[in-house]
Amino acid sequence: MMVNGQRYRTVWLSEEDGRVVQIIDQRKLPFEFEIEDLPTVEAVATAIRDMHVRGAGCIGGTAGYGMYVAALEAANAPDFKEALETKAKQLVETRPTAVNLKWAVDRQLAAILGTDGDVEEQILVAKETALAIADEDADWCRRIGEHGLKLIEAIAATKAPGEPVNVLTHCNAGWLAFVDFGSATAPIYAAHDAGIPIHVWVDETRPRNQGARLTAWELGGHGVLHTVIADNVGGHLMQHGMVDLVITGTDRTTRAGDVANKIGTYLKALAAKDNGVPFYVALPSSTIDWAIRDGVKEIPIEQRDATEVTEISGLPIEAEGNVNETTIRLTPEDTSAANFAFDVTPSRLVTGLITERGVCEASEEGILDLFPEHKEVAEME
Amino acid sequence: MMVNGQRYRTVWLSEEDGRVVQIIDQRKLPFEFEIEDLPTVEAVATAIRDMHVRGAGCIGGTAGYGMYVAALEAANAPDFKEALETKAKQLVETRPTAVNLKWAVDRQLAAILGTDGDVEEQILVAKETALAIADEDADWCRRIGEHGLKLIEAIAATKAPGEPVNVLTHCNAGWLAFVDFGSATAPIYAAHDAGIPIHVWVDETRPRNQGARLTAWELGGHGVLHTVIADNVGGHLMQHGMVDLVITGTDRTTRAGDVANKIGTYLKALAAKDNGVPFYVALPSSTIDWAIRDGVKEIPIEQRDATEVTEISGLPIEAEGNVNETTIRLTPEDTSAANFAFDVTPSRLVTGLITERGVCEASEEGILDLFPEHKEVAEME
Repeated sequence: MMVNGQRYRTVWLSEEDGRVVQIIDQRKLPFEFEIEDLPTVEAVATAIRDMHVRGAGCIGGTAGYGMYVAALEAANAPDFKEALETKAKQLVETRPTAVNLKWAVDRQLAAILGTDGDVEEQILVAKETALAIADEDADWCRRIGEHGLKLIEAIAATKAPGEPVNVLTHCNAGWLAFVDFGSATAPIYAAHDAGIPIHVWVDETRPRNQGARLTAWELGGHGVLHTVIADNVGGHLMQHGMVDLVITGTDRTTRAGDVANKIGTYLKALAAKDNGVPFYVALPSSTIDWAIRDGVKEIPIEQRDATEVTEISGLPIEAEGNVNETTIRLTPEDTSAANFAFDVTPSRLVTGLITERGVCEASEEGILDLFPEHKEVAEME
Repeated sequence: MMVNGQRYRTVWLSEEDGRVVQIIDQRKLPFEFEIEDLPTVEAVATAIRDMHVRGAGCIGGTAGYGMYVAALEAANAPDFKEALETKAKQLVETRPTAVNLKWAVDRQLAAILGTDGDVEEQILVAKETALAIADEDADWCRRIGEHGLKLIEAIAATKAPGEPVNVLTHCNAGWLAFVDFGSATAPIYAAHDAGIPIHVWVDETRPRNQGARLTAWELGGHGVLHTVIADNVGGHLMQHGMVDLVITGTDRTTRAGDVANKIGTYLKALAAKDNGVPFYVALPSSTIDWAIRDGVKEIPIEQRDATEVTEISGLPIEAEGNVNETTIRLTPEDTSAANFAFDVTPSRLVTGLITERGVCEASEEGILDLFPEHKEVAEME
């Protein structure tokens, strides 16, 4: 999407020689927009491990490009296959729980090693596969945007001319988390680009503040009107008719339509239900875990470091022109804190799922209507 | 309650000459515990206006003592009554919306000016009235604690020996907000002091973080086990049986039992309802607005400065021994933010109200059972 009037994806190959991966260093957002060169597998691994890039689609895309760099490097090794597999392992181990990362690396391994031809041919396949992984991720998100746009158009049709559609979102399921467009944000960008007046309430999303930092930054860059709010505020806004629609992303979706998303999503879903506000979850179907149904019981919730709660970073307001963040403590010394990273929103609170194939009910039946190829698994159980 | 092993109230008269008001400067908590002398009405007014003290009960208590200092100062004026009334006005104007402030000042004016006797006699009445206001506030909170203790005892009885009762609270309805004990915290302190194992989930309470700063500090000082969490976390905890009871305070309660409390309270009430967790609101009956019923429709919600959302203060973690806070920006430059300070939790989500007279249902009938003297007002309508 747009940054400073120019169009970007989150990851791409350098225009100069097409052999260097380039990313937006997301650690520095929103205070500094910096493009980082990743010329080696080592650099790609560091970028994934240390979260210069984050978000399933963006990590998958970066890993895909990383495997192209791996093929370039392996070409100089005595044993191409052995070297490639070692580098693949290095990439996968950077974030062991990132499903999209392993998926992209495995797809590349199969494509490269399944090629009949010399190393030059294999490198060509690696490049094509990297581009395909990135393009497919972007295309799925674009389709999510098209399907979600219809929901926003329907709401806009009920409004006075010029009156904005108010969407609330939580965390960052934006283009920064994918290769392009985002999931929850895709319908928002589609509506904005279609000229529909739209305004987004951005939950700051404590403790890591992905909303206040990333979603606010990317919406601002693309010119979408938005307002940052504390996570506590959404219920009040819904009580007073100030939210027309909630759209969030999801990290993992059960085949029955329960969604595990950033901690706090469940509270917004409860408020939406209590006030008759539609609550949609946008997702590429790759987030659906076809093996489980009951999200609350079956999805383990990651606990992260307590310092993410007791400390926070930002830009010192007195430091004119300075882009170096400072970290401050928010709590009394030695205070204990707990830091659950996700929660599960039961499908009964979800109005619908916006997928790359269309919008469906958040239920096993609804999901299988769009993805009939997964019916068999259910019947086999 | 206890601080560094010593018992404190939030406001008192100095032991030396009994003519100087002393407070805990709450702006400096939790990083510095500083007692401030307020020897003049001017100093008392500044302390209230600039929020060295905050919370209805604490402000009321401080204003009560402030009027004693006003009487001491007025004794040197040519016209005692005129001087006293000028100083009273000065105090009331520091925070025009603080109901308890005006109430305490008016009570003092009536007591002092209603005294048959000389100025010396009037000063004595002012002192006695100040002490009475503070003692009554503390006593009401102590009673809230006694009544709430029974609820906690009943839960403790269902637990294995040593297993703590888990209470979740939002914001600071603690002793720091009153003269002593607090409202939401009073049952917690009572349980702790009675030897019942208790653990408190402390919502950090963005944007002003009264939970992370004040509630965590006061619970720690008194030795109560607690864990700070982001405001997003409570729903997840309740889904997994990790909360036995929610207790919050209230800034304003309708005669039908709707409660206006710190923004985000409503979201926790929804989660409690969805998970069958009892949700209690603790309050001295002085917070009941007998003139209104529908909180969502009738209680205007204050909007505060957006910088409370876009900026935050805390202790630089690299500054060993430093107690000076630093302010940092959390959002991209020029980001808009909205800052609604309160929300309304409808009575249907409230299990019960814990008042100084006992626990009642959050309904007009329940409330009037405990406060029958207010029945007439209802019938007059």
